[in-house]
Amino acid sequence: MTAAADHPSPLPAPAAAEVDLLGALAYGELSSFLRLSAEAAGAPSLREIEGLARLGVEHFSRYRLLSARLREVGVAPESAMGPFRVALDAFHARTTPRDWTESLIKAYVGDGIATDFYLEVSAHVGETTQRLVREVLGAAVTGGGAGAPQTAQSDVGDYVVAAVARASAEDPQLSSRLALWGRRLVGEALSQAQGIVTDHPALASLLTGGAGGGDGDGAASRNAHGADLVEVGAMFMRITQAHVRRMGRLGLTA
Amino acid sequence: MTAAADHPSPLPAPAAAEVDLLGALAYGELSSFLRLSAEAAGAPSLREIEGLARLGVEHFSRYRLLSARLREVGVAPESAMGPFRVALDAFHARTTPRDWTESLIKAYVGDGIATDFYLEVSAHVGETTQRLVREVLGAAVTGGGAGAPQTAQSDVGDYVVAAVARASAEDPQLSSRLALWGRRLVGEALSQAQGIVTDHPALASLLTGGAGGGDGDGAASRNAHGADLVEVGAMFMRITQAHVRRMGRLGLTA
Repeated sequence: MTAAADHPSPLPAPAAAEVDLLGALAYGELSSFLRLSAEAAGAPSLREIEGLARLGVEHFSRYRLLSARLREVGVAPESAMGPFRVALDAFHARTTPRDWTESLIKAYVGDGIATDFYLEVSAHVGETTQRLVREVLGAAVTGGGAGAPQTAQSDVGDYVVAAVARASAEDPQLSSRLALWGRRLVGEALSQAQGIVTDHPALASLLTGGAGGGDGDGAASRNAHGADLVEVGAMFMRITQAHVRRMGRLGLTA
Repeated sequence: MTAAADHPSPLPAPAAAEVDLLGALAYGELSSFLRLSAEAAGAPSLREIEGLARLGVEHFSRYRLLSARLREVGVAPESAMGPFRVALDAFHARTTPRDWTESLIKAYVGDGIATDFYLEVSAHVGETTQRLVREVLGAAVTGGGAGAPQTAQSDVGDYVVAAVARASAEDPQLSSRLALWGRRLVGEALSQAQGIVTDHPALASLLTGGAGGGDGDGAASRNAHGADLVEVGAMFMRITQAHVRRMGRLGLTA
């Protein structure tokens, strides 16, 4: 309350930021589902087809939870997702995997980056939505609890690590190609995240705690636009570090 | 027991028929999932994309149940599905929808035919597998019980009927095109079913009760190959009648 009075701001209401967050996430999950399912058909064996299909369907489960929440707050999922379609479709067009091993890497490290980003964005959103977002995405990191999607990202990682190892055994050049692919993915994903923040001020306000709550640090950072940028920069550094760890787990040079 | 002694036959053991049934069904569900998910991306709006995606994911849930049962009886799903890939892929290649409305019709009337066929085939299979197959497919007819896939085929029908009505409102020529498409689908599906029966004697034996049990009629029909054919013909007639009812529900000429 005091903080809000001290810092009157032209930022959109928390509701707008929440709808933006849910809309961006929901479309991200839906498009990941569509991409992975289509890519699954091109995998070399039924085992790998099933593996990619499973990853795809997991995204659809998340999409269902997110779109249900949008309906709950009175927003048609289509209209919340609409503003994010062009940017996310462009991201996928720029990162179309050439084969199923690139799909695997994208499913693990690409989604890992998106997950980290949206967890950061959700730090200052309303409690119910925050719990949902953390359940949907946090399951991707911790293994999930009741009601969480069935495949945790740690399981995703296990599957991807094993499948990449199987493929590498048959193609000694694969590691260097996939290492390059990982670097391309992280570059595109970060520029994508930056673009989303730039184009959607309501979301940007969440990153710096502007749309509600926020502790002392958050208030201090809002004193100047430069401080906000430093905070956003630190976030991108944390995301990049997590990416480097995931590439390491895959045995690939980040 | 007596029936088996009276009619010693060169038919494969029930286990082989059961594995064939589960394998054919599992690959059918997996390929329906892959096709519908890929086709969903081409739907004209997020609402229709979600609708087709939901239908696709439903098939994946069924695939999971069927492949779990295969593992339970000690068979790798890949090896049980393998013998059915060529025929089912060829069916899909011959019935590739030109747009999302054709996908909808295929998802409802095509899957309806497949469901009816496999329910007939499952009539003489072991009890546990029969219960699973009826749960997986019966859910598609009756609305399903606990543990059944989430979308019953009656719901599928409701969704497809409504979506076709929306699309027809914008295109007065659509009904006649979709009626033609329905006729093409039933022709291809029946010849597909007939081919599967011909190529897999273990499955054929199930249709005429040859692989176990069987009532008086079944025993009588096995007295001559011609009687078997009559029984199979009657089955295809029942399937065709159910197809005509589904087309009627869609307001399309069968």
